[in-house]
Amino acid sequence: MSRMGSQTFVYDRPPAIAAHRSIAGPKEGKGPLAAWFDTVLEDDILGQKSWELAEMEMVRRCVQAALNEAHVTDEQAQAMLGGDLNNQIIASSFAARALGVPFIGLYGACSTFVQALVIGSALICGGFLDNAVCVASSHYCTAERQFRFPLELGSQRPPQASWTATACGCALLSNEDRGGLRVTSGTVGRIIDLNISDANHMGAAMAPAVFDCIAAHMADTGRTADDYDLIATGDLGWIGRDLLLELASAADMPLPPDRLIDCGASLFYQEQDAHAGGSGCGCVASVACGWLMKRLEAGDIRRLLLVGSGAMFSPTSSQQAQSVPGIAYAACIERRD
Amino acid sequence: MSRMGSQTFVYDRPPAIAAHRSIAGPKEGKGPLAAWFDTVLEDDILGQKSWELAEMEMVRRCVQAALNEAHVTDEQAQAMLGGDLNNQIIASSFAARALGVPFIGLYGACSTFVQALVIGSALICGGFLDNAVCVASSHYCTAERQFRFPLELGSQRPPQASWTATACGCALLSNEDRGGLRVTSGTVGRIIDLNISDANHMGAAMAPAVFDCIAAHMADTGRTADDYDLIATGDLGWIGRDLLLELASAADMPLPPDRLIDCGASLFYQEQDAHAGGSGCGCVASVACGWLMKRLEAGDIRRLLLVGSGAMFSPTSSQQAQSVPGIAYAACIERRD
Repeated sequence: MSRMGSQTFVYDRPPAIAAHRSIAGPKEGKGPLAAWFDTVLEDDILGQKSWELAEMEMVRRCVQAALNEAHVTDEQAQAMLGGDLNNQIIASSFAARALGVPFIGLYGACSTFVQALVIGSALICGGFLDNAVCVASSHYCTAERQFRFPLELGSQRPPQASWTATACGCALLSNEDRGGLRVTSGTVGRIIDLNISDANHMGAAMAPAVFDCIAAHMADTGRTADDYDLIATGDLGWIGRDLLLELASAADMPLPPDRLIDCGASLFYQEQDAHAGGSGCGCVASVACGWLMKRLEAGDIRRLLLVGSGAMFSPTSSQQAQSVPGIAYAACIERRD
Repeated sequence: MSRMGSQTFVYDRPPAIAAHRSIAGPKEGKGPLAAWFDTVLEDDILGQKSWELAEMEMVRRCVQAALNEAHVTDEQAQAMLGGDLNNQIIASSFAARALGVPFIGLYGACSTFVQALVIGSALICGGFLDNAVCVASSHYCTAERQFRFPLELGSQRPPQASWTATACGCALLSNEDRGGLRVTSGTVGRIIDLNISDANHMGAAMAPAVFDCIAAHMADTGRTADDYDLIATGDLGWIGRDLLLELASAADMPLPPDRLIDCGASLFYQEQDAHAGGSGCGCVASVACGWLMKRLEAGDIRRLLLVGSGAMFSPTSSQQAQSVPGIAYAACIERRD
């Protein structure tokens, strides 16, 4: 309803998170967050004929579970906002086809889930929607063959590469005051590009955009990192998180290492051979919906800044020797007292 | 601000279209609308090294021209909403990188421009933004090699195929009351799929989604086609437009053929060998910004329903024998008296 600064929306009628669901793949279900996910898949194919169809089915199940949890029928669901890493976001749009819900397709690479929260919250706070499903997914096997190499090739992964999570997260926003969690503000980031041209080094490509977005959020809201119990980025991985801390210190706006986590760096044990950590639209979505929102509900944290980051490149742009531009969106999620 | 029906946003503080700009490629500049475009390109490479870079440059120039026209600096521009047909919407995101404007990446295939108008208008009407750049582009050469075959292969095009326009359109929305044009309502469509699996036959794949969206808009607003001086779809092409008329008649909600045009069917002369007509995100964007908005300003028409349609498929989904789901968004644009 109101604009506080140049990039931040403040929701003076904050939408409630009426339900949230997470699905994680088999590898993700063996990581440190295993116990937090609502569903851990036994395999990554879900009875489908292709990985792409499996990802669509994962999205459909995740959205359906969130709607069921809130006792909202497909017909009552007013909009689905989401996207994924597949070319032309087919996982999301085919899931929207199956559900029959009006669809707003978004693309912010790995930041898409937070992008959906920011836009969906604005549409609800503005009175345009009563509810909105925000969803994002990724699948290791669909992403690898699309962005890098077909898995069948058995390519060696460089140590700075992240591991695209097979995962999905979905939050149902509502204008009904249900207590619980609320989205209170959202920041739209700019595209920042410090000329990283290694498409495997996404943490480095995205860290500057994440810092730019956090700095804008703080400037717009007049807050500092001390106003947040936790800042969760997704997904910079272990390397990108270190770079973010360095960038913040260099700009004289240090971030507290003990209250800064990264979803990608939290998803896997180092021994799981995920190199720089988890990534993919589904990583921040599933970690936020599966772990962070439950921590908020438990009162372990009361105010979270969730910062989704995306690498806005394509195989074509990489082949044409372009660098990897980064973007980030931030959403403040608070527990109602 | 208010929701009238289940899929339609009614903007009770309707954003103004403060500026609009269009760029058309050389072939598009030889069609029936040649005189209406603000810029007709002499070639399709714009001095760049690749067609993708040329498309990015076309987007950048188009946005810059719209901002200049409204005397809005890059720093004053609060958000850019847009997308394109390239994998991972690189034309839009790289243009946003060059401009430094906060970016909301959208993907609605050829409907993206209208999707941007619908979301951008909501963000302005809701008080979240003072202005927003809505933009979409397409380029014949980038789209062919991505969705069908590399041009170098010299593949024969089937008669039902449409011709992806090399074009860009940009509208700058503003909360300042400037007279002129305003966006008064917007409808978010559902994904509709009647099982067309010919990825060349996009008019047939999209016509049912267009009809569904128009029917929802009319039901939500209590209007009929008689309330509109013109309904402009984009882009069904000649075949899809006929199918839309048939679907509407069969549903006992006939559309007036003399007040129903299709942007794709208007872009080329039949002799230009564009087969089913123009398509691509840039088609409806450039025709709306170049021709239709100028007709509204001239008073030739006073109330326009602009209906963007998109085929939400990818080469991967086609190779996996999936059908082509369609979507549509509608925006009502009116001339202020």
